[in-house]
Amino acid sequence: MQLPDLTLAEASDAIRERRVSPVELVDSILDHIDQVEPRLQAYVAVQADQARSAARDAEREIVAGRIRGALHGVPMGLKDLIDVAGTATTASSRVRAEHRADSDSTVFARLRTAGAILLGKTHTHEFAYGLTTPQTHNAWDQTRVAGGSSGGSAIAVAARIATFALGTDTGGSIRVPASLNGVVGLKPTYGLVSRHGVTSLSWSLDHVGQITRTVEDASLVLSVLAGHDPRDPASLPCTDGDYRPGPVADLTGLRVGVPRNYYFDHVDPHVDAVVRTAIDRLADLGAHLVEVEIPMTRYIQATQWGLMVPEATAYHERSLRAVPDLYAADVRALLEAGELITAGDYLRAQRARTLMRQAWARLLDEVDVIAAPTVPMTAVPANLETITWSDGTVESVSDAYVRLCAPANLTGIPSLSLPVGHDPAGMPIGMQLLGRPRSEAVLLRVGHAHAQTQPARPLAPMA
Amino acid sequence: MQLPDLTLAEASDAIRERRVSPVELVDSILDHIDQVEPRLQAYVAVQADQARSAARDAEREIVAGRIRGALHGVPMGLKDLIDVAGTATTASSRVRAEHRADSDSTVFARLRTAGAILLGKTHTHEFAYGLTTPQTHNAWDQTRVAGGSSGGSAIAVAARIATFALGTDTGGSIRVPASLNGVVGLKPTYGLVSRHGVTSLSWSLDHVGQITRTVEDASLVLSVLAGHDPRDPASLPCTDGDYRPGPVADLTGLRVGVPRNYYFDHVDPHVDAVVRTAIDRLADLGAHLVEVEIPMTRYIQATQWGLMVPEATAYHERSLRAVPDLYAADVRALLEAGELITAGDYLRAQRARTLMRQAWARLLDEVDVIAAPTVPMTAVPANLETITWSDGTVESVSDAYVRLCAPANLTGIPSLSLPVGHDPAGMPIGMQLLGRPRSEAVLLRVGHAHAQTQPARPLAPMA
Repeated sequence: MQLPDLTLAEASDAIRERRVSPVELVDSILDHIDQVEPRLQAYVAVQADQARSAARDAEREIVAGRIRGALHGVPMGLKDLIDVAGTATTASSRVRAEHRADSDSTVFARLRTAGAILLGKTHTHEFAYGLTTPQTHNAWDQTRVAGGSSGGSAIAVAARIATFALGTDTGGSIRVPASLNGVVGLKPTYGLVSRHGVTSLSWSLDHVGQITRTVEDASLVLSVLAGHDPRDPASLPCTDGDYRPGPVADLTGLRVGVPRNYYFDHVDPHVDAVVRTAIDRLADLGAHLVEVEIPMTRYIQATQWGLMVPEATAYHERSLRAVPDLYAADVRALLEAGELITAGDYLRAQRARTLMRQAWARLLDEVDVIAAPTVPMTAVPANLETITWSDGTVESVSDAYVRLCAPANLTGIPSLSLPVGHDPAGMPIGMQLLGRPRSEAVLLRVGHAHAQTQPARPLAPMA
Repeated sequence: MQLPDLTLAEASDAIRERRVSPVELVDSILDHIDQVEPRLQAYVAVQADQARSAARDAEREIVAGRIRGALHGVPMGLKDLIDVAGTATTASSRVRAEHRADSDSTVFARLRTAGAILLGKTHTHEFAYGLTTPQTHNAWDQTRVAGGSSGGSAIAVAARIATFALGTDTGGSIRVPASLNGVVGLKPTYGLVSRHGVTSLSWSLDHVGQITRTVEDASLVLSVLAGHDPRDPASLPCTDGDYRPGPVADLTGLRVGVPRNYYFDHVDPHVDAVVRTAIDRLADLGAHLVEVEIPMTRYIQATQWGLMVPEATAYHERSLRAVPDLYAADVRALLEAGELITAGDYLRAQRARTLMRQAWARLLDEVDVIAAPTVPMTAVPANLETITWSDGTVESVSDAYVRLCAPANLTGIPSLSLPVGHDPAGMPIGMQLLGRPRSEAVLLRVGHAHAQTQPARPLAPMA
């Protein structure tokens, strides 16, 4: 196995046991970036010198026996919405060409304190406002979409040019690209991870989370990211915790909800079959499967867009007037559309969300976890605008990728996407596990148990 | 002294000491209602039989030695936005002609448990959406406005046809009529008193509070009203408490902020002089006066209206479409205007409020209390639409009455209005005391201390 292929847990063990030095690990990944990045375009900017320097510092500390924890010496990428002092946060936008962050975001400060090493900033769909990340190419098939908006982070992790990466998720932006690239994405509970110093898309729906190659890796990163931050007004109190799943894969007693509506409607048959097989694996591990009815489904799309569109426009109000031409056409159109939304529409969406949260809370009294596809179809060819379902329904690609992710943003509940198979073209398929607010430890335990039942997954072939 | 003239504290003492029976007290007030109500129009409906029956029950319990507390056997009025099971909550509107509340509001349930006796529901400006309460007449001069929107409650207390009353306050609706009728009004901290079962005007600005004849009475009512209620999403945790001011009127060490801007701009010279004299009394009692600068004043009006108008329209959406003609013309115009507000305007107002809250929190680090006029002018003649200030500025009467009250609604801080004098026409003048969130005990102590320095106030002459 080559060094870039190490998972976070493997790299962490190897560093702690001094089998691998952070300098070797960073060097090998930087070499790998040189090889694959021209084809993938995962990074906005790679900070090779700073990364090497940080790796030497980490090596020195570790040799001296001062190990900060599981992330010490581990190289990672940050979606370029996340501030690092003295560096541009470009949001992959020409609007931010002159930007320079004054101070670190809370999540980067926590990662740096934990000893993680920043390789660079990864591409986002411009200002996180889209589901494809057009600059960037899918790690399994260059002709297909990366997924978005955290496309660069997912590609970097899938292609082993980052051991892990952070993303943001407002309507699926961590889970969609994770699913389309065969990696693990976690959107934590609303308020569990600070958003201070992270460019907002829609503050009432925005989440920061991580993309990793394994569920275990996700738990190692979450243990560092989670924590109260008074600088994020939505931050939950007392959110520190250890999220590592135990070694036992027994799920006896766990109630897993299988949706009878919504999550398997207008879903590609290969995705449907692979996810249902993955759910059967959970039953094999002892879980009790319970059919559940997803509430208020006809309001999901209108509520998601009814909140997101005006909040995004409000955030961009000044630059949309000052420099409209610097936005990409698709993002500018959405931002301008936001100017036409009435306060009544927005308030209706707020009230629908409140009712939806209450209905989901009742649903999650009945089951511990809900298992469902992350997205209805695998990565589509780049530039495909719409897909047509077997009953003739035409849906935009963006709407389809948001559709199954949005409920977790609207309700604030955690959602973990993990790879569970491939379609006949070899493209990865993701399953998401949804749970009660603050139930990340349960989702990670279930996801980890599932992964242990599987043969070793192939890595993305681009590497 | 006649029984209706008893303050709550006096009535409470008399009842507890069995010098007065609740039956006598209720009967005497019902008689007084018969005399003055035709001229005042404070009540939507008086429930004489139920009140007499409740008084007999209270008498029986008290004779048996089971005294529930300071409110036991005390007659009161409820603004007709507050639900009482089985009774119409008319909101003084034809829209609610067929209404019937299914269950009690939390505040009425608390008052009933405390043994208070409901005399009837008092008039509001239709749906609380106005500052005059046109059906109702000022207790000091029938030709002048009652003030609103809790006009009926203020008139009832001023005219001694209720020993105390509840109101609601979204932009001054407790404090304005209290000030214009020479009584005490408290708008508590946002979330301290439950709004469950109370018709909403603008949920992010709405408060329930009380109107009384003395500050001491206000503290007795607040001790019953305050408390956590999971059915009000904005309810604060752990809000029970005893708010009675101690007997000592010494204010040594207290820092009283005196605004150098905003609160004394465009204020009638008589109001200005009387309030400044009242502030000097606080200094006589040992308070340290500190000049303070009110922050973000140019945003107050736009933020107040920018939040209130769309929230009110959202609340009325269905009936505004179904029965627009049943609304009064002024209220219908405001509700229809709300349909034109964009989500961007609303979000701008939300963000301005957040900044305003932070700026006021810093201001209230410097002082314990801020003292200011409640409203810029005393009760104006009914049907007056605008007033002209000495510099030629023309202002609508509604805007003027809201202007000095709105900051406490926007920031959620408590505000206590108390009578401090009269203008040359004999109309009452109010001073408001503002403090930090949850500092009601401080405001009540200061207000009570001030009242003790004053000669006994004349009662409204209408009685």
